[in-house]
Amino acid sequence: MSTLTFPGSLPSPADDCEQLHKAFQGWGIQRGTNEGLIISVLAHRPAAHRREIRRAYAEIYGEDLLKSLDKELTRDFEVASTYLCCSLLALKISPLSLIFVGFWFGAQRAVLLWVLDAAERDAVLANEVVRKWSPGNRVLIEIAVARTADELFAAKRAYQARFKRSLEEDVAAHTNGDFRKLLVPLVSSYRYEGSEVNTSLAKSEAKMLHEKIKGKDYNHEEVIRILTTRSKAQLLATFNDYKNQFGNPINKDLKSDPKNEFLSMLRAIIRCITCPERYLEKIIRLAINKMGTDEGALTRVITTRAEVDMKQIKELYYKRNNVTLYSAVKKDTTGDYEDFLLALIGHDDA
Amino acid sequence: MSTLTFPGSLPSPADDCEQLHKAFQGWGIQRGTNEGLIISVLAHRPAAHRREIRRAYAEIYGEDLLKSLDKELTRDFEVASTYLCCSLLALKISPLSLIFVGFWFGAQRAVLLWVLDAAERDAVLANEVVRKWSPGNRVLIEIAVARTADELFAAKRAYQARFKRSLEEDVAAHTNGDFRKLLVPLVSSYRYEGSEVNTSLAKSEAKMLHEKIKGKDYNHEEVIRILTTRSKAQLLATFNDYKNQFGNPINKDLKSDPKNEFLSMLRAIIRCITCPERYLEKIIRLAINKMGTDEGALTRVITTRAEVDMKQIKELYYKRNNVTLYSAVKKDTTGDYEDFLLALIGHDDA
Repeated sequence: MSTLTFPGSLPSPADDCEQLHKAFQGWGIQRGTNEGLIISVLAHRPAAHRREIRRAYAEIYGEDLLKSLDKELTRDFEVASTYLCCSLLALKISPLSLIFVGFWFGAQRAVLLWVLDAAERDAVLANEVVRKWSPGNRVLIEIAVARTADELFAAKRAYQARFKRSLEEDVAAHTNGDFRKLLVPLVSSYRYEGSEVNTSLAKSEAKMLHEKIKGKDYNHEEVIRILTTRSKAQLLATFNDYKNQFGNPINKDLKSDPKNEFLSMLRAIIRCITCPERYLEKIIRLAINKMGTDEGALTRVITTRAEVDMKQIKELYYKRNNVTLYSAVKKDTTGDYEDFLLALIGHDDA
Repeated sequence: MSTLTFPGSLPSPADDCEQLHKAFQGWGIQRGTNEGLIISVLAHRPAAHRREIRRAYAEIYGEDLLKSLDKELTRDFEVASTYLCCSLLALKISPLSLIFVGFWFGAQRAVLLWVLDAAERDAVLANEVVRKWSPGNRVLIEIAVARTADELFAAKRAYQARFKRSLEEDVAAHTNGDFRKLLVPLVSSYRYEGSEVNTSLAKSEAKMLHEKIKGKDYNHEEVIRILTTRSKAQLLATFNDYKNQFGNPINKDLKSDPKNEFLSMLRAIIRCITCPERYLEKIIRLAINKMGTDEGALTRVITTRAEVDMKQIKELYYKRNNVTLYSAVKKDTTGDYEDFLLALIGHDDA
């Protein structure tokens, strides 16, 4: 369930545009009423209305809302945000800009991501991570597994429209070894989403997984085939059968070497299939607990899940940490960034 | 271009249904006016109108048009057609029926396939071949490569709706070895379809393909990655560059061992990417030239391409064989089957 709150009677997109246009003038120079105005508008409008605002803004002011947001950013973020904005606007960029990837933090990034449609947002996030991919990165898993099959497909269409290439070819070209063998089918498969389960198949594939895991043959093509092509309902049955037949949850058996990044990725995929909310709670927890906060991960999960299952993630966060997510984010962030994230996750603490 | 001919002013779907309902009573018992009536209706209606006929038929007679067609089939085809019909109607079938797969020939099969939407037809064809897959079978290549990315995706959706599983998981579970490594990404990728070409990438990937082919490393993951993920426009540039850099067309270099089925599959994929019409002309030619005629292939290509590019395929057939496809089909087939195929490919010989 969503944590987004918005007025019962929404202002017209044109009225919202006018408010935003006024607010942009002061954005980023000093914290004040303008930033509050931007947050009060954008953080309290559902996706369809934000799309309307973006369309109306382009009509009224002849400029993409993203570009206007970008224009008013402070100098510190200028190059990085230009990169992001170019990426968002599907413009060509120089490879030099890539070195500023690390600076896409804070309120600006959160607002820019939030303004995008869910599919466009996933496309931008996937493209960022593909360009600077490392085995520890989990963004592709979120996009491939925590979305529905149709949401993943929509992201792939948005990726092509924006970057003039397919997500599949970029993932295949920028990853390697076992990670490629796992990630390419993971982002390629259009999984079946029905609830039908073949119990004898679950039994035989649980056995197959167990044999490969027991033999430390973690990258075996059968392991990859099962995890990347079977439906989530079928996989849940397989994981349950695994535990019933062999005693341990499958992820416990995959913990033989905590430093092995491939094993860690397999576990992440299995966690994300089993319970995406629990998986995402952990991503947020690690982001907050990290020295200096992993703003990239925090922003990503909050902007992508606020309208999906943030309520469940908040509840799980509270159960796990004995502190509300609201308090944790409040403590760990500052300024416009804090205000924006808190507006998205809402006050109604678990 | 299509070879389908139909009246400028189409009868209403209800009128067509009435004609068909009358005709079915005599179908398959002896050749006569009833069969001619079925052909005159179904073989001269565009896809959208056939869809309307099927919908109207179900409304008026309370039964799927496919089932009605099936009911009137002769005894010889009964079990086989029941299998096909079950498959078409997404009903459960007994494994025993599979042994009758070889009998799905003739007019009945052609008509049943023709009544389906293009995506449903591809789903049924793909499912048939996955269940009885052998390395020499080319149906999955046609469906994955000779269709647009959106057509392939529509076929995958239709596959899920009908069989309650994904095409990807079935291909992955029923193929093996190098064929699986090639076919799973081939049916999974949502290729970019734009015309943009990266010439330096074409150059470097042509070089990579040449190195692997020279080293007889045909199943190398880079070869598979390039062929299964790059856009068709990009691949055409790569193949051209290959010829320019290294002297031979890529497919000539892949002919080192004519008996190697994997090499043969790679060549088929490359031919199908380079010019699907030429590839399909060859499928038809081989089907006709085969002792006894490969009716499965002939029916498949004609029913799937009649409304797409059969005109070009006919022209290529005439150029290659010095005989019109019309004459060749007429000579090689008989009865209702002959009449139906000729109606689809049309009299306007190249």
